[in-house]
Amino acid sequence: MSMVTSQLSISLDGYVAGPEQSLQDPLGRGGEQLHEWVVGLESWRAQHGLSGGEPGVDADVVEEATRGVGAYVMGRRMFGGGDGPWDETWRGWWGDEPPFHVPVFVLTHHPREPLAMAGGTEFHFVTGGVHAALDAARKAAGDGKVAIAGGASTVRQYLTAGLLDTLQLHIVPIVLGAGERLLDDVGDVRLEQAAVVAGPTVTHVTYRVLR
Amino acid sequence: MSMVTSQLSISLDGYVAGPEQSLQDPLGRGGEQLHEWVVGLESWRAQHGLSGGEPGVDADVVEEATRGVGAYVMGRRMFGGGDGPWDETWRGWWGDEPPFHVPVFVLTHHPREPLAMAGGTEFHFVTGGVHAALDAARKAAGDGKVAIAGGASTVRQYLTAGLLDTLQLHIVPIVLGAGERLLDDVGDVRLEQAAVVAGPTVTHVTYRVLR
Repeated sequence: MSMVTSQLSISLDGYVAGPEQSLQDPLGRGGEQLHEWVVGLESWRAQHGLSGGEPGVDADVVEEATRGVGAYVMGRRMFGGGDGPWDETWRGWWGDEPPFHVPVFVLTHHPREPLAMAGGTEFHFVTGGVHAALDAARKAAGDGKVAIAGGASTVRQYLTAGLLDTLQLHIVPIVLGAGERLLDDVGDVRLEQAAVVAGPTVTHVTYRVLR
Repeated sequence: MSMVTSQLSISLDGYVAGPEQSLQDPLGRGGEQLHEWVVGLESWRAQHGLSGGEPGVDADVVEEATRGVGAYVMGRRMFGGGDGPWDETWRGWWGDEPPFHVPVFVLTHHPREPLAMAGGTEFHFVTGGVHAALDAARKAAGDGKVAIAGGASTVRQYLTAGLLDTLQLHIVPIVLGAGERLLDDVGDVRLEQAAVVAGPTVTHVTYRVLR
């Protein structure tokens, strides 16, 4: 059965988004600092159809995290387009050619027809909850991994439901002071360190989730 | 001037002690799990006058953290003996030969004569606050480092006062869910990753504190 993985950038004080998150500013105040290490990387740029960028340890981590992913699951907030019934003109934050290149299952309370994008990304809208979305993603992924793309509350749901096999945290040396914490109210989660990669500015640690 | 360092074990959700801390149980519920990685190590045992134990990466980290320390500063809670005026029979948690082997400056509101212990540890009791304790520790340390031994609130005071040069966190893959967080209410602290060591079960990251 497909491995279920997730990876998130996290501040040293445990936040995966800053305070005052909104539909327009899903990262919250200061939250963009969590992702500064990634946006200039060669592998990240390649996934977004851009050339150039920095090679190196961080780029390898990003490349490795997406290698072999056969399907993604994401929350409605991450896909965007508000909380209510769909405005069918909303096609995600990523333009015509999103960086996923495989099926993406979006958790939502509102049905919508699938959306095929350039470059292989197909958005499917799942109203049956986290288990249903994961089942559909596993089926689509075949032998590939399923990656829980985010946001934080979606990752937390999969973690607390015991559905996540590995969690990779990119530990960013900033203190946000407020915002959304990944590991608040996750209950009795047990983890085991599986791999550590020291980037030049952040530390990448992969944890196995124990049953 | 002496480098001022500190090192703490921290849970993945940011806690350096569990909930329900008390004078009798300063680590709080579950807090002892933060220190499981350290107690069997050869270097830790040697500091405590014990033979045997495990060599390896973690033991080297512990040895390195104490190497060149010329004086320690610690909070009253870490030294123990209650919050009020001193019961002079209280000589710390560590028996006749504490593992410090250099002068230790204890922050307290209650004056007390210095206490010379076996093995080179001398406890000095400082009523003048964190700056006074650090000044005394720097003087005692000479060319050596000053280590802020703990507890968390003492480390937080030195961090927020801009008096700490480096902070090493031993990131332990447990979720405590409640307790005392190191980095709550520390304000606008800026850090920079300086060194990463992957232990077998925990990750050791040293941060430079930027001014």
